[in-house]
Amino acid sequence: MSKILMSHGAGGEKMKQLLDTFILPKLRSDIGDVPLSALDDSGIIDDIVFTIDGHTVKPIFFPGGDIGSLAVAGTVNDIAVMGARPVALALSLVIEEGLDGQDLEKIMDSISLASEKAGVPVMAGDTKVVERGAADKIVVTTAGIGVRSNALDINIKKLKKIRHTHIRWLRDSNLQPGDKIIVSGTVGDHGIAVLSCREGYGFESEILSDVCSLNSMIEKALHVGGIVSMKDPTRGGLANTLNEFAEKSGVGIEIDEEFIPLNPAVIIACGLLGLDPLEIGNEGKVVIGVAPEKADEVLACLRATEEGKNAALIGQASSEIKGVVMKTSVGGRRVVEPPIGDPIPRIC
Amino acid sequence: MSKILMSHGAGGEKMKQLLDTFILPKLRSDIGDVPLSALDDSGIIDDIVFTIDGHTVKPIFFPGGDIGSLAVAGTVNDIAVMGARPVALALSLVIEEGLDGQDLEKIMDSISLASEKAGVPVMAGDTKVVERGAADKIVVTTAGIGVRSNALDINIKKLKKIRHTHIRWLRDSNLQPGDKIIVSGTVGDHGIAVLSCREGYGFESEILSDVCSLNSMIEKALHVGGIVSMKDPTRGGLANTLNEFAEKSGVGIEIDEEFIPLNPAVIIACGLLGLDPLEIGNEGKVVIGVAPEKADEVLACLRATEEGKNAALIGQASSEIKGVVMKTSVGGRRVVEPPIGDPIPRIC
Repeated sequence: MSKILMSHGAGGEKMKQLLDTFILPKLRSDIGDVPLSALDDSGIIDDIVFTIDGHTVKPIFFPGGDIGSLAVAGTVNDIAVMGARPVALALSLVIEEGLDGQDLEKIMDSISLASEKAGVPVMAGDTKVVERGAADKIVVTTAGIGVRSNALDINIKKLKKIRHTHIRWLRDSNLQPGDKIIVSGTVGDHGIAVLSCREGYGFESEILSDVCSLNSMIEKALHVGGIVSMKDPTRGGLANTLNEFAEKSGVGIEIDEEFIPLNPAVIIACGLLGLDPLEIGNEGKVVIGVAPEKADEVLACLRATEEGKNAALIGQASSEIKGVVMKTSVGGRRVVEPPIGDPIPRIC
Repeated sequence: MSKILMSHGAGGEKMKQLLDTFILPKLRSDIGDVPLSALDDSGIIDDIVFTIDGHTVKPIFFPGGDIGSLAVAGTVNDIAVMGARPVALALSLVIEEGLDGQDLEKIMDSISLASEKAGVPVMAGDTKVVERGAADKIVVTTAGIGVRSNALDINIKKLKKIRHTHIRWLRDSNLQPGDKIIVSGTVGDHGIAVLSCREGYGFESEILSDVCSLNSMIEKALHVGGIVSMKDPTRGGLANTLNEFAEKSGVGIEIDEEFIPLNPAVIIACGLLGLDPLEIGNEGKVVIGVAPEKADEVLACLRATEEGKNAALIGQASSEIKGVVMKTSVGGRRVVEPPIGDPIPRIC
């Protein structure tokens, strides 16, 4: 790999190659309760949950959100899916000289609103300005910290009534055969909304990004109990998330195409553009692995919330198969591979 | 302010204007033990110290360091100067397509080495790739978390034997008249090294960046006791740091030019380039405010370390004056203003 390519940043197999070649071998990746090598949504050390995300979405304003709301939601969700309560954000702005003051104001308004709604304040920040051409308008990097939530303890207590388990955090590796897979709503909206807006494909009026902080909904679901794993299906989409669950947990996952919630306009857009909605990134969805005894109750809880009203049970973990296999709507079966590279760059 | 300009990112008065106009009014800045509005080196909430810094240094490799060692040291130092023990780093890379794999490898080696030396592991990360022209090679953003250090408790216990105080963290606002000001070594090296390398001025062989994690040295100094404030004089240099101390603590500061440690080559370079070394950013220095009873002992402790061997006592806080006033080496007095804009952009 003599030059870094766009596909190396895309959250699929090529990205894994970049991480395995350049990043992970260089770092002590064995430290902490959830070490860096776990490649989970956040790292955990001394019961502090810690995560970071750089945002380079293009365009910076898109239907349903902007780089500001994205930067808050992305980080809040990465903490919440571990079972933690997000406590604070840190915000780093790298601004290209010449950015409109009004645009910066809109982005900051959006960060402010998203931070208030999620109940997670910005506690630290840094601002740099670089000359024209050294950035594309603005890069917003958000780090977040979280602490063990009471809701997680309740969830695990209830899980222990069902099975013997040593789970302490909602890691990707916790799934057991039989655990049900729930997705909290329609998939593919964010990526298609950003792509359509950028390229002028005309779906902008029908498809909005789902960008949204999910910490409140997740806390409610944890009170129901029985949840073992959670992940937000961002880069690489549902296909990547399910493959990460399967690989890290050492189980197969079978899903049913018929049950996957999809916005009809996303189906049409994906059909026209030759894209697979399962590979498209989301910014306001969570995929949940839950003990079968609690699956219906967790689903009902999600559906009672605005963010989770389209939640659906889409499949289960299994010891009978390897990888991720989907029963298609026409009755066949196909393997759902992790995407090689993201079909849509710069959506987050 | 209709457009954002380079000077808005420079850590002086213009930067303050940007923060006061666009950033701070948008954020709930009153939360935490050290809130965002304090504009201290880190924010503190629930005894967790949290900070972030985006690094856009140009060139990415410079005499004495590179963007990788810079990214680690900058964040480690921002935590250490609050009196905290840095626990973990999070690393966000935004890479321009086409970056040489070898360059990425060198940067990661440097991050690895700096993280090992400082004893602070990378616990979380994110990597994005953007198309050519959407970044200048690479942006490295580092966030860090720290926890209350035992050394800080020892320092405060010893301080309380000298004076009645409610200090809990080493905030910029803790100085009292009479407190001594120590700088841990020569100032201006980092900024001049980067500038000289970028522009080919020819000082590269004589002036190396001071980039260095100071957590170990700071911990030793805290064991001596009596320290009230600390700050690393990065963007805006010593001039900006002293003015922040003075303004936030509501005291004047008088310093003596003669005692300020300066590398002779930095004096020559600044003379030729018309720059004031007090306004040049550093990446391996700390400015310390300490109770007068403990000043000599702290100074001796610093001087016994490799990082602090050139430490010097340069002045004291005073109720007799306002702002920062310097006794010049020719016997006059001049006001040291905070720089309007950084004389050297993109040094960090």
